[in-house]
Amino acid sequence: MNNTFKRIGLFIRKDDPVLETAVIQINEFLLSRELKVFCNEPMSFLPNLEVISIAEFPSECDLTIAIGGDGTMLSASRALAGFDLPVVGVNVGRLGFLADVTLNKLQTQLGRILDGQYRHDNRFLLQAHLNNAENPICIAMNDVVIHSHQSRHMIEFETHINGRFLNSQRADGLVVATPTGSTAYAMSAGGPILDVDLDAVVLASVCPHTLSNRPLVIAASSIIDITLSENNITTAMVTCDGRPGHVLEPGDSVRIQRHANRIDLLHLEDHDHYSILRAKLEWGRKLTC
Amino acid sequence: MNNTFKRIGLFIRKDDPVLETAVIQINEFLLSRELKVFCNEPMSFLPNLEVISIAEFPSECDLTIAIGGDGTMLSASRALAGFDLPVVGVNVGRLGFLADVTLNKLQTQLGRILDGQYRHDNRFLLQAHLNNAENPICIAMNDVVIHSHQSRHMIEFETHINGRFLNSQRADGLVVATPTGSTAYAMSAGGPILDVDLDAVVLASVCPHTLSNRPLVIAASSIIDITLSENNITTAMVTCDGRPGHVLEPGDSVRIQRHANRIDLLHLEDHDHYSILRAKLEWGRKLTC
Amino acid sequence: MNNTFKRIGLFIRKDDPVLETAVIQINEFLLSRELKVFCNEPMSFLPNLEVISIAEFPSECDLTIAIGGDGTMLSASRALAGFDLPVVGVNVGRLGFLADVTLNKLQTQLGRILDGQYRHDNRFLLQAHLNNAENPICIAMNDVVIHSHQSRHMIEFETHINGRFLNSQRADGLVVATPTGSTAYAMSAGGPILDVDLDAVVLASVCPHTLSNRPLVIAASSIIDITLSENNITTAMVTCDGRPGHVLEPGDSVRIQRHANRIDLLHLEDHDHYSILRAKLEWGRKLTC
Amino acid sequence: MNNTFKRIGLFIRKDDPVLETAVIQINEFLLSRELKVFCNEPMSFLPNLEVISIAEFPSECDLTIAIGGDGTMLSASRALAGFDLPVVGVNVGRLGFLADVTLNKLQTQLGRILDGQYRHDNRFLLQAHLNNAENPICIAMNDVVIHSHQSRHMIEFETHINGRFLNSQRADGLVVATPTGSTAYAMSAGGPILDVDLDAVVLASVCPHTLSNRPLVIAASSIIDITLSENNITTAMVTCDGRPGHVLEPGDSVRIQRHANRIDLLHLEDHDHYSILRAKLEWGRKLTC
Repeated sequence: MNNTFKRIGLFIRKDDPVLETAVIQINEFLLSRELKVFCNEPMSFLPNLEVISIAEFPSECDLTIAIGGDGTMLSASRALAGFDLPVVGVNVGRLGFLADVTLNKLQTQLGRILDGQYRHDNRFLLQAHLNNAENPICIAMNDVVIHSHQSRHMIEFETHINGRFLNSQRADGLVVATPTGSTAYAMSAGGPILDVDLDAVVLASVCPHTLSNRPLVIAASSIIDITLSENNITTAMVTCDGRPGHVLEPGDSVRIQRHANRIDLLHLEDHDHYSILRAKLEWGRKLTC
Repeated sequence: MNNTFKRIGLFIRKDDPVLETAVIQINEFLLSRELKVFCNEPMSFLPNLEVISIAEFPSECDLTIAIGGDGTMLSASRALAGFDLPVVGVNVGRLGFLADVTLNKLQTQLGRILDGQYRHDNRFLLQAHLNNAENPICIAMNDVVIHSHQSRHMIEFETHINGRFLNSQRADGLVVATPTGSTAYAMSAGGPILDVDLDAVVLASVCPHTLSNRPLVIAASSIIDITLSENNITTAMVTCDGRPGHVLEPGDSVRIQRHANRIDLLHLEDHDHYSILRAKLEWGRKLTC
Repeated sequence: MNNTFKRIGLFIRKDDPVLETAVIQINEFLLSRELKVFCNEPMSFLPNLEVISIAEFPSECDLTIAIGGDGTMLSASRALAGFDLPVVGVNVGRLGFLADVTLNKLQTQLGRILDGQYRHDNRFLLQAHLNNAENPICIAMNDVVIHSHQSRHMIEFETHINGRFLNSQRADGLVVATPTGSTAYAMSAGGPILDVDLDAVVLASVCPHTLSNRPLVIAASSIIDITLSENNITTAMVTCDGRPGHVLEPGDSVRIQRHANRIDLLHLEDHDHYSILRAKLEWGRKLTC
Repeated sequence: MNNTFKRIGLFIRKDDPVLETAVIQINEFLLSRELKVFCNEPMSFLPNLEVISIAEFPSECDLTIAIGGDGTMLSASRALAGFDLPVVGVNVGRLGFLADVTLNKLQTQLGRILDGQYRHDNRFLLQAHLNNAENPICIAMNDVVIHSHQSRHMIEFETHINGRFLNSQRADGLVVATPTGSTAYAMSAGGPILDVDLDAVVLASVCPHTLSNRPLVIAASSIIDITLSENNITTAMVTCDGRPGHVLEPGDSVRIQRHANRIDLLHLEDHDHYSILRAKLEWGRKLTC
């Protein structure tokens, strides 16, 4: 047995009984391979499992195992953005786009990854800055969304790409999504699917007021500035991956751009993103005979 | 001169200088035809103009003139739902779907209507009841919308049509629109245009979570029950024509159905709804050569 | 045993081995109920089964059983348009929108219908006339489609509704669909679902050249005239339910209107169109957790 | 006067009186700058204008001026693919996405370009190969489209990206478009706008049979293989930029990939693609007040 990784950080989002069973099983498997294991949450049934915060993972671990589903992968990835620590996902629930190790094939699948039989899937993240502030207000793996603070109040905003004026529009909101996020909220808003390795982001308006509005796909290296028009009568919100957001006053600007580092997801060697797309989007189904 | 209508109620939404000029002009024209004129708002420049509330229009007037735009027409129509009082609209701003008398052709156009040269355009309205309460929470001419109270929180709800289960879905919201409202918010949500005289309503989901969701058009006589699922973690809102809404707790139901009365809009005899559609939706425009 | 119907016409589209088995089984069941049975196609294994053409069904039968799927139901319905002969469908393949008796529950389900335990589902059909000719060129239960004769050649055409000009547009084609057809080709073209009992048709453009084009739903009683513009450089085609079509020269007009008679489909009493919609459109499915 | 280019090839698509006037005017202007001028078509009014074929442009000229509109630019670009000859477009008709010199500002605008005051806009093209043949069947600047040969006949096909199976689908067709083509037919089929300098192509299905079908954006370096399923009952067509196509038999494959060379369009220094998008897509327009 030749362990590519020696020190493993287990990441979960909350202490959920379902996850506890998974953590116990994964911990046992890792210990059987004589690996050092940490976890970001105390597990009542595993008093000997060493607890460190996710912020300590980069210095203490050489692999993160995110246990849960795609949401857990998003959380881990955002927390580890800027560090050079690979993440592999164990899917406790339904088939995920990101987490492809399944609990009932743990030993084979996780075993292979620990043996070094994996492939990299580098995903970029977005960061959002408010009014030229130095620090980002949030980091997103799926999407940054500008939307009305109060629902059913349209907002008016201007978009510039790399300093060039794109357009002024009125809509319920605007989704700026990575390829990872293109199959999430951006898709509900009518956006296209971006291939996972495409260096691009999509801008999709939510309930646009103009009939000729269409989603726009631009280079991932673009700097996107969204300015909430002065004449809005309500505030707006900026949210990253759907988490609690930041208020945007009329006249405020949000700058959205690619985060400097990519996150390194590890997948099984036979991982096939298209087969997941087919399964999750049910491309095999036909409407009628 | 043979006045079809004798007692005219002028309806405006707020005391706006632009509207004042219009009211003065319209008032003068009506007085020149020896008509009795009321207004729902006091006009500082017209101290002699008798002010009565819109609630008194049905007993005091035989015609309402709504001055402003489509929004003013919606307000007047909701307020007059249930009464047998025709409404004509004077369009102070841009071309409207509902208000077709223009201020600079006032004498000819309004004159013709007062002469009895008009045609009827009966529109139905919707009403929304909360949890089988006797009185509606609101009346809508465009649409009743169920939507998340906090934006970026999807809601889950079940829809029944005439007591039959249609579906359960997760989305940002659901728009139930009349033909009048089919060119408003429902269209931003991807709904079709319903011909103005079609006895139908459209149900269009806002950012639906399911890829196979499509707008559904049903008979206007349908009883539509929307139940916010018990497992929602946030409340939702019900709004009529985009006005301030009513909170919907998980488990609550909204019943949406046609209001018993129609509103009777009067139009010039050469009024052509399709030409307004062509103008407002720019159907004449072509993308490329 | 009290047979509501005495003389049954079996309708199939072609002599297919799969259908033969079904016809044998259905024929036996009907004979066991002492009913007179006809078929529109000779069955080599059933030499005693009396063969009459579908045109003779109305005078010889009091019930048509269409055996196959939705396509067979469409064929039978078009052939029987104008006659007062109910149709019930036996679904040999996959779940259908129209044919709800399944072969493996034949005795119970068909038995109940023969016992008189059914409900009516009246569907209207469309007919298309060329240049004011007296006889229609075709009858459609799903849709009449005007489309370019040569693919990738846009056509330009004008639409009038009840004599009023709607618009002039350039597109690959135009679908005019009944509620029955709203879940077929019209849906691929972006049209909404029309509730089965809605008295409306939808006009949905195929690949419209104008960004502001939207599907339009109008009353089923409307007279729709489509004129192929004189300046088209190619001919177009008119097809009913996707069958071989009729050529349309530049300047030609097609008038589409509701057929005078409705077709009377019989369903089991617990037939639920919404549950078929949910099953076929997979409304239960969710994209992500 | 310092001419950056010395030998100019004028390119027109056909001998049209409108173009003749433009050619005369442009020719005069070029002669006044003492440049050598060629044209790909004989001009009856310019007997002294030297005629050479477009194939000779690369060896004889150092600049091509395409006179007409976007279609002329597409023709010139396809013909010059593989050569290192810049193209500038003079727009005789309406505003174009590609041709930005206008006839009535010829001296200033073309003058500036000849003075060397221009910027490059490199666009990639696509080429399509049939069944692994060595030579492409066609070259496209906008799009390669696979579509049913006979309209209203759906085709079934499989798509592979870089050798990996993407999906099997039934549709009227499939559009594979460059950023240049993303505002043309792909947009009518529901595709997003790709920023002009994005290294990506979009795959958009025409009237897909599956409700969950969505446009897919992939890297421009991808190799896309479309195989017409053996079970199709009709042939299909492959067309490049909408020109006459090539027949595809059931079982045939088309390989679509980026052409090795880019075409070098020259624009005025103040050329702003977003302002053209705003003008042509009417992003400034609002539906209602």
